[in-house]
Amino acid sequence: MAELPPKEKGFIDWYLAAVDAANLTDKRYPVKGMNVWTPYGFLARRNLDDVMIRAIEATGSQPVEFPALIPETEFQKEKEHIKGFDAQVYWVTRGGANPLDVNLVLRPTSETAMYPVFALWIRSHRDLPLNVYQIVNTFRYETKTTRPFLRVREIHFFEEHTCQVDEAAASERVRSNLGAFGVMAHDFALPFVAVRRPEWDKFAGAHFSIAFDIPVGEARTLQIGSVHHYRENFSGPYGIRYEAADGTTKLVHQTTFGLSERLIGAIVAVHGDDHGVVFPSAIAPYQVVVIPIAGAKSTAPPEAAAQAIVAQLRARGLRVHLDSGPDRPGAKYYHWEAAGVPLRLEVGPREAAAGQATAVDRLGQRSTVGPTGLDNAVVERLDAFDAALRSRAADRFHDAFKVAATLDELTNSTHVRVLPWCGEESCGHKIEIAIDGALLGVPEGGLPLPLPAPGRCIACGLDMPSQWALAGRPL
Amino acid sequence: MAELPPKEKGFIDWYLAAVDAANLTDKRYPVKGMNVWTPYGFLARRNLDDVMIRAIEATGSQPVEFPALIPETEFQKEKEHIKGFDAQVYWVTRGGANPLDVNLVLRPTSETAMYPVFALWIRSHRDLPLNVYQIVNTFRYETKTTRPFLRVREIHFFEEHTCQVDEAAASERVRSNLGAFGVMAHDFALPFVAVRRPEWDKFAGAHFSIAFDIPVGEARTLQIGSVHHYRENFSGPYGIRYEAADGTTKLVHQTTFGLSERLIGAIVAVHGDDHGVVFPSAIAPYQVVVIPIAGAKSTAPPEAAAQAIVAQLRARGLRVHLDSGPDRPGAKYYHWEAAGVPLRLEVGPREAAAGQATAVDRLGQRSTVGPTGLDNAVVERLDAFDAALRSRAADRFHDAFKVAATLDELTNSTHVRVLPWCGEESCGHKIEIAIDGALLGVPEGGLPLPLPAPGRCIACGLDMPSQWALAGRPL
Repeated sequence: MAELPPKEKGFIDWYLAAVDAANLTDKRYPVKGMNVWTPYGFLARRNLDDVMIRAIEATGSQPVEFPALIPETEFQKEKEHIKGFDAQVYWVTRGGANPLDVNLVLRPTSETAMYPVFALWIRSHRDLPLNVYQIVNTFRYETKTTRPFLRVREIHFFEEHTCQVDEAAASERVRSNLGAFGVMAHDFALPFVAVRRPEWDKFAGAHFSIAFDIPVGEARTLQIGSVHHYRENFSGPYGIRYEAADGTTKLVHQTTFGLSERLIGAIVAVHGDDHGVVFPSAIAPYQVVVIPIAGAKSTAPPEAAAQAIVAQLRARGLRVHLDSGPDRPGAKYYHWEAAGVPLRLEVGPREAAAGQATAVDRLGQRSTVGPTGLDNAVVERLDAFDAALRSRAADRFHDAFKVAATLDELTNSTHVRVLPWCGEESCGHKIEIAIDGALLGVPEGGLPLPLPAPGRCIACGLDMPSQWALAGRPL
Repeated sequence: MAELPPKEKGFIDWYLAAVDAANLTDKRYPVKGMNVWTPYGFLARRNLDDVMIRAIEATGSQPVEFPALIPETEFQKEKEHIKGFDAQVYWVTRGGANPLDVNLVLRPTSETAMYPVFALWIRSHRDLPLNVYQIVNTFRYETKTTRPFLRVREIHFFEEHTCQVDEAAASERVRSNLGAFGVMAHDFALPFVAVRRPEWDKFAGAHFSIAFDIPVGEARTLQIGSVHHYRENFSGPYGIRYEAADGTTKLVHQTTFGLSERLIGAIVAVHGDDHGVVFPSAIAPYQVVVIPIAGAKSTAPPEAAAQAIVAQLRARGLRVHLDSGPDRPGAKYYHWEAAGVPLRLEVGPREAAAGQATAVDRLGQRSTVGPTGLDNAVVERLDAFDAALRSRAADRFHDAFKVAATLDELTNSTHVRVLPWCGEESCGHKIEIAIDGALLGVPEGGLPLPLPAPGRCIACGLDMPSQWALAGRPL
């Protein structure tokens, strides 16, 4: 196996090599940007989905699934939204040999699929709130360079859509979503900042957008999710009305919450190292790999002892893989490190005789587990590994931000910048030019920096109340 | 709520009404045959998927996901397959405003998506068997009348694809799949017959096809799944070769195993009655509904006692719904019967005071559960309900088949017919004309009829060894 190029030297080269070495996806499918989920990558995705499902259902959201194809007539009802997606949708124009009467769009997101039906579902205030979500694939005719998980043309996607009685209830749902993402992010071990996007960068059709950003080295950032408040922007065109308790008819206020497979890319990007991927145990396809090792005189490896350990750990509910393959132990270690398995258990003849195993976690911590309470010890080791992973990620997160006092400091910045901004779009664009990236917006939560009171706007210097904003270079 | 039309009087009218009354799907989406999975229907589907996932992974199959879009160039490599699907595929021809260089097919099934990549994955006999499956949606430009779950244009689909070293290993995989479906069918409570389809009705490109059929009243049958042996029919065109242990290069032999949301339709069709849907407990979105009931003098209903029961049953791992809504108890009973909930627990003031509940299962069995061991008693009631449901389905299954000795008996047959057939296609077609349906094929398993040795072919009467075959009217 080839060594990975160092992460420090070039993030993208390292990222592509790390994803390949872990065999999370196969890019050789004959449509560019549409990749194959390998068994290993699919298992990571399933665990990711399970984390999302648990967290969102705990907030009262129910699963649904709407069709993948949207009639052109519905797709075109909300003008801003269309402008945002028109250039990047796939069009279905034929069925068999026949042109379709109405062309169909492969969903780039599901507002225009769901909202005509929401208008049928909602009659009365007793039907509200309507909180539903789906996990489906979306499609974007991406013209930029595609990257596994980060920018693809078929996107594994989580989308919650809600209808609320009024603007305040919708704002409350936005807050609930921020909380739910915090719960998920704990399992992903991803520190993030919630940022209110500037007007010119909000979601097409939104009243406001809050995005979750993470720093991924230098001034680079990755948007890993977003929550949007739509007010009545969609309920108007789609006629989603209800009869209020007082008998009047009102439009619902809507919100959405979106996440995607990009989270897998973020986990690779944040936790990975020069040995490869590092999965937190909630997401790891295999949480533990057990490797039987032959003794010095090429005796048979202690297969039975290893199998007993696997059985014990599976009974405990852990995802465990037994690697009894023909490769040498060193090659196996190398392989499963690249694959990001949190904990490796080595079972040599000595360990087997003692009912023990040598545990080595993906951050290099070594210990002995067993003979009694081996399963408890493994769970403890996994918990300790997760805690160490979170701690390391939190340290890196803190180090990634740096206050900037002048526009000049933004040039070639090696950090995501925290800066005072007056809120004017013209100043925002000056900041974007200086950092050669984006004014990410105003932090709403998640940012752990002890923020001093902001000074004058970094761009115009006007003596008016300014606010802290973030600027970086989104991947 | 309207009464359902009687199932006896007209199956399709009853079926459509039962699906609507249970609110499993919404047909009002503005593309015909593409329906919305409501929260309730989606939960049934999730349980269905879980049953399939458990059973197939127990046989060593791994999950994957291949892209939904297939380039025309790959789609056209296997000629028979194309002939089978050409008229019913959706074509993506534009991205944004631009015509695509290569048109893309929305997968109708994934042979042509997977096999070019299998050719990259498989190098050596050590890479075999390759047993992978995916659960995705497929798309068919259906020109016949669409019916929820039974015939739709976006189909929730399970498909296993395997590569084996030779024909015998592939045949063994077919047998393994038959066994896996038997495991699943136990949870679905669906008695079925496995039938080897005649040559003219096998899957496009298959060497042979075994389908799972169930009788659904009169002579009607429903195909609820199928397993195919492809031999080298696809591995040739797609170049899926491996180096054998002896150093020679060989083509793999392939199999597939397909199931779909039609299983939900089958569960509705087989178990449902004039009160609505009946779900076996493995598939039921809610296994138990708990209904607090106010006392005679319109006292407050015993909400706290009901909540305690819900908590206890959820802790036991059951899917439980608490219905504290404003409707009268009778309306609630009616509603949850139509929705097919296996067990209803009524908690009135008397029950609440005693720590008990009155349990009524969907087949009408009534008992008292609690105060001690209430959760155990509920699990026992669910097991007894499932056993009774299976028993009733088995009785109906047995009664649905009837031996036919002459072609005349097939006309207007009220049963699926078991008949001697010489195996000739011309005789098969005579049988199909007589029954105004299909020669389903030769049973391979699952048929519980005590089959006598067959007589002469019902169509030609030739004095040659004939075999038992089934004929019916597929929905």
